[in-house]
Amino acid sequence: MSQALQQNQHLNMVRHPQMLARAEEIAPELYHRDIFPQAIVSAQKDEQKIHGWRPERVNTAAGFLQQEFAQGEHVIIDFGEHCVGYLEFACESVGSPPDAPAHLQFIFGETLAEVVEPFSDYSGWLSSSWLQQQDCYLDELPHRMRLPRRYCCRYLRINIVALSRKFRLRFTSLKLDTVTSASLVALPQCQTMDHPLKRIDEVAIHTLKNCMQEVFEDGPKRDRRLWLGDLRLQALVNDVTVKNYPLVKRCLYLFAAMTREDGMLSANIFVKPQVIADDTFLFDYALFFVDVLQDYAAATHDRQTLAELWPVAWQQIEIALARVGENGIVRDSSDWWSFIDWHEDLNKQAASQGVLIYCLNKALMLARLYDTGKVAFLEEQISSLKTASLRELWDAQSGFFTSGESRQISCASQVWLVLADVGTVESQQQLLVRLKSHPPEIQMNTPYMMHHYVAALLHVNEIEQATEEIKGYWGAMVEHGADTFWELFDPQRPDFSPYGSKLINSYCHAWSCTPSWFIRKYLL
Amino acid sequence: MSQALQQNQHLNMVRHPQMLARAEEIAPELYHRDIFPQAIVSAQKDEQKIHGWRPERVNTAAGFLQQEFAQGEHVIIDFGEHCVGYLEFACESVGSPPDAPAHLQFIFGETLAEVVEPFSDYSGWLSSSWLQQQDCYLDELPHRMRLPRRYCCRYLRINIVALSRKFRLRFTSLKLDTVTSASLVALPQCQTMDHPLKRIDEVAIHTLKNCMQEVFEDGPKRDRRLWLGDLRLQALVNDVTVKNYPLVKRCLYLFAAMTREDGMLSANIFVKPQVIADDTFLFDYALFFVDVLQDYAAATHDRQTLAELWPVAWQQIEIALARVGENGIVRDSSDWWSFIDWHEDLNKQAASQGVLIYCLNKALMLARLYDTGKVAFLEEQISSLKTASLRELWDAQSGFFTSGESRQISCASQVWLVLADVGTVESQQQLLVRLKSHPPEIQMNTPYMMHHYVAALLHVNEIEQATEEIKGYWGAMVEHGADTFWELFDPQRPDFSPYGSKLINSYCHAWSCTPSWFIRKYLL
Repeated sequence: MSQALQQNQHLNMVRHPQMLARAEEIAPELYHRDIFPQAIVSAQKDEQKIHGWRPERVNTAAGFLQQEFAQGEHVIIDFGEHCVGYLEFACESVGSPPDAPAHLQFIFGETLAEVVEPFSDYSGWLSSSWLQQQDCYLDELPHRMRLPRRYCCRYLRINIVALSRKFRLRFTSLKLDTVTSASLVALPQCQTMDHPLKRIDEVAIHTLKNCMQEVFEDGPKRDRRLWLGDLRLQALVNDVTVKNYPLVKRCLYLFAAMTREDGMLSANIFVKPQVIADDTFLFDYALFFVDVLQDYAAATHDRQTLAELWPVAWQQIEIALARVGENGIVRDSSDWWSFIDWHEDLNKQAASQGVLIYCLNKALMLARLYDTGKVAFLEEQISSLKTASLRELWDAQSGFFTSGESRQISCASQVWLVLADVGTVESQQQLLVRLKSHPPEIQMNTPYMMHHYVAALLHVNEIEQATEEIKGYWGAMVEHGADTFWELFDPQRPDFSPYGSKLINSYCHAWSCTPSWFIRKYLL
Repeated sequence: MSQALQQNQHLNMVRHPQMLARAEEIAPELYHRDIFPQAIVSAQKDEQKIHGWRPERVNTAAGFLQQEFAQGEHVIIDFGEHCVGYLEFACESVGSPPDAPAHLQFIFGETLAEVVEPFSDYSGWLSSSWLQQQDCYLDELPHRMRLPRRYCCRYLRINIVALSRKFRLRFTSLKLDTVTSASLVALPQCQTMDHPLKRIDEVAIHTLKNCMQEVFEDGPKRDRRLWLGDLRLQALVNDVTVKNYPLVKRCLYLFAAMTREDGMLSANIFVKPQVIADDTFLFDYALFFVDVLQDYAAATHDRQTLAELWPVAWQQIEIALARVGENGIVRDSSDWWSFIDWHEDLNKQAASQGVLIYCLNKALMLARLYDTGKVAFLEEQISSLKTASLRELWDAQSGFFTSGESRQISCASQVWLVLADVGTVESQQQLLVRLKSHPPEIQMNTPYMMHHYVAALLHVNEIEQATEEIKGYWGAMVEHGADTFWELFDPQRPDFSPYGSKLINSYCHAWSCTPSWFIRKYLL
C-alpha cells in the first residue's frame, strides 16, 4: 500500500536491538541480471490505449548504438519488460572535440505515459521527487557512468538537452543491471491448464520478483518500503513460488525491531540509512503481523522465530481488543486509522471488525499449537465479536452489514465480515451473491481490496466465480499490456489515482501479485 | 578567450608523445581550502546595479544551519568571494521519517543574476550545458554528499524542489572545497602606494589564482580550457606573483604535444579525459607560442625546455610568414581566423600584421641568445614587414593605420602596430593620443584588448595615461563589486555578451588578470 498521511512525530518509539540483530543476520543476497534495450520506440497518442499512448517501433537496439544525436533530440528505449535496477551507459562524442559538457536528461517510466507527459505538469499530492528522472552533465567524453539511484522502468527516455554545435553524441553501450532477491531457478511449475490464468500467474510472479529486494517492498518505483499489509500478501505468494522464507522472517523481525511505547507495530518500516519505523499506525496492518506469523510458522515450523515473535503478535491483539466497545464492536472515531482500501468515503469500522476477528482466528490457530493457555480466551473473544457483528452491524432490510454511525454499506464491510467467518456459510454465500447483484455505492478501488473479495469467494467455495473475477480484473491488466500488476486499476476509470496523477501510480505493486497464490493454492 | 566556431574535424593531427610525457611529469599539486557560507541573502531587483540585482543579507551562516526548509522554499548562500571548487553538504530530515526522496536543485552563480534569472529563458548560442546546475534526489536521509563536478561561484542557490508533507529539511553542514594550483604563501608584496591600484592588484591575483588549476584555464566556469592567448597573459602575471613556472612549462609542452600536420599549434587544448588539441586554429594565438616561450626562458633560463620547444616556435613563424603577401602584408581572406578581439565587425588584417612583427621581435630576442644563425633573417623580415605596414596600411589623411580591403580603421589595428614598434616612438605616441581624441568606430570590446591598449601606452612611456586606463576600466569592475575580473566588460553596455546572454559570460577570466603585471612590472 502507500501511506495514509499521519504525522505523529512526537511519539516515543522503542528500539529492540536483539530483534534488529536477527533481521540483519539474514540480509538477502541480490541476484543480478543485465537487461539490454529491445527496441527504440516513438510514442503515438492513442485514446484506445489505457494510458493514452501506443509505442511504435522506430529502430532496433543495434541501430540505436549507431545513432548520432544532436542537441534537442531524444530517444525512447523499450527494455521489453518491467525492470528494477541500475542504469549503466557509455557514450562518446562525434565530430570536433567536445567543447562543452553534454547535458543529458534521463526519464524512467514504468509506462509510456511517464516518459511522454511532462513531469512539469504533475500536480498530484505525493511528492514529485518520486518521478524518476536525472539530469547528467558530462564534462568529459567519452564517458562511462552508472547512475547511483535504482530505477524502475520498462521505458527510458533520454533527452539530449544540450551539447554544442561542434559535436554530436553516440551511445556505445547501455544496459540495466537489474536486481531482485527472488531466485526463479527452483520455481515450481504452475499446474493450471488455463492459458489466461497461466499468463496471469507469470505476470504476478514478475510483479513479486521485482518487489523482492532487501525487503519485500510495496512497489519498487514508489515507496520502496516494507509495509505490513503488502508483506502479508507477498508472503502468501512467496510460499507457493520462490519460497524465500528467510526474507519473510527478516521482515517480521524488522517490524518487531521498533515499536510504539505501548508495543503497537508501525504500518511500515524504513530500512535505510538505518531501520526506522514510520510514525504511521494502522489498526488492520498491526493485526496482520499475527496473520503473517501464522502463515510463516505453518510453512516453516520455525519454533524459535515463533517463540520470539509470538509475544509481539499477542501485543497487537491486546491493543486491538482495547478498541472494542461495550457493544462488542471496534469503536469508530475520527482520529483512528485503518487502511482497508484506498477510498476516501469508505467507513472502515465494519471491515476493521472483520480484520480483528480474522486475525483472532489466526491467533487461535497458533495458540492451539504453541500457547494453549490462550485458546479459551480467544474462542470467547471470537464468539462474542461475531455475535456483536450480527447484532450491531447487520441490516436485515438491505441484507448487508453496515458500518459507522451513518450505517454505510460498502463492499469492504461485507468482504471482511465473510473473511471473519461471521454468520453461516450459507448466509455468507448469499451475501456475496447479493454483493454482485446489488452492488453498493461504495465499491472496491484497488487490487488489494479485490484480493480480499476473491479470497472471500474462495472462503465460501465459489471457485468458479473467483476464477472469473481473477480473469476479469487481473486479466484485463494483462490485456492492457501489463507485464507486472498495478497498484491501482479501475476498469471504468483507467486514469484513476488516489494521488491526483496516474504518473505517480505504481505499476508494479506487491499487493497485486496474489493471483499466483489463488491459482496455485486452489489449483484453479 | 573562448572559441570562435571553427569545425575542422577531418584534419589529421599528429601526436608527439615525448612532449606529452614532459607535460605529464609536472602535473601540478592542487591546494585545497575550505570556504564556508558567509551570509544568506535575498536578491533585490535594482536597476542601478550592473547586473540588475542587489544582495540583501537576510540571515547569518549560523542561522542557515538552524533553518528548516519546506518543499518549494529556497535559499541563496553568499560565500563572500569568488570560489572554484567542490560542494560538500550534509542534510537531515526534521519531522516524521522521510517518506519520499528529497529533490534539491543547486544553482551556482558567479553573479547574483545567474541564481535569480531562470536558465530556462537562456537563449545564447553557447551550450546551455555550461549553466551551472545540478538536481539531486536523496533517497536516504540524513545524507552527506560531495557533488562530483567542479563549480565556480560566489552565490549558491538551493531550491527545495520537493520533499513530502511529512518532513522538512535542515542542512547540518555545507562548504566549498576550493582548489587552485597557485600558492599565495610566498606572494611578493605589491609596492604600489595607490589604494585603488592595490585593490585592483588583489582582484587580479584572485582572478589568476582561480584560473590556475591543472592548467592555466581561460575561465573556471566556462570553457575551463587551456587557450594560448590566455596562457600568454597568465604567464606574465604568474611571473610577478605566484611564480609557478612549472605550470607554464607544462602548458607549453601540452600545446607542443599535438599539432596539425603542417606543425601549426591549435588555439586550445582539452586535457581530459586525454590531451586533445582542438580543431580551432588562430593565426595570432599560434604565434604567441613564441612570446610565451621567450618570457618563460627569460625568467627561468631553462635551456633544456628552450632547446626542445624552439623548433616548435620556429614552425609557427614559418607558417605565419607563408601568409605574407608580395606587398609585405599578411594576406586577408574570408577563410582565415585570427582572434584579436571579440568583435563581429573587426577586420583583423592590420592587427595580425602587428602580432606577427611583435612575435618576430620576441623570436629575435631568443635567436640572439640561443640561435644566432637566425638573427639576420629575422632582422630582415621585421624590417620589411614594418616598412610594408607603413607603406600599405598607413592612411596619412586620417592619421591611422587601416585594415582590409575596406580600409577599416579600428583601435585594434593601431594598438597592435604600436606594440609591433612600427614607426618612430614619437609617431606611436601621437597615434595613441589621436586614438583617444578621435576614437574610431571600431572600439575595443574585451579586457583582453584593453590589456594590449595599456601595454601600447606603456610601450610609448605614457605611464600616467596607462594608470588612468587601468583605474578607469578595471577599477570600474571593482566598483561594481567584482572580486575577480570579468571576461567581458563594456562600461557602456553592462549586459554585453558576444554569446547572446550575460548569464553565460565568464566572471573570472584569465585574460583580465593583467593589471597585476602592469602594476608590479612598471611599478605604477
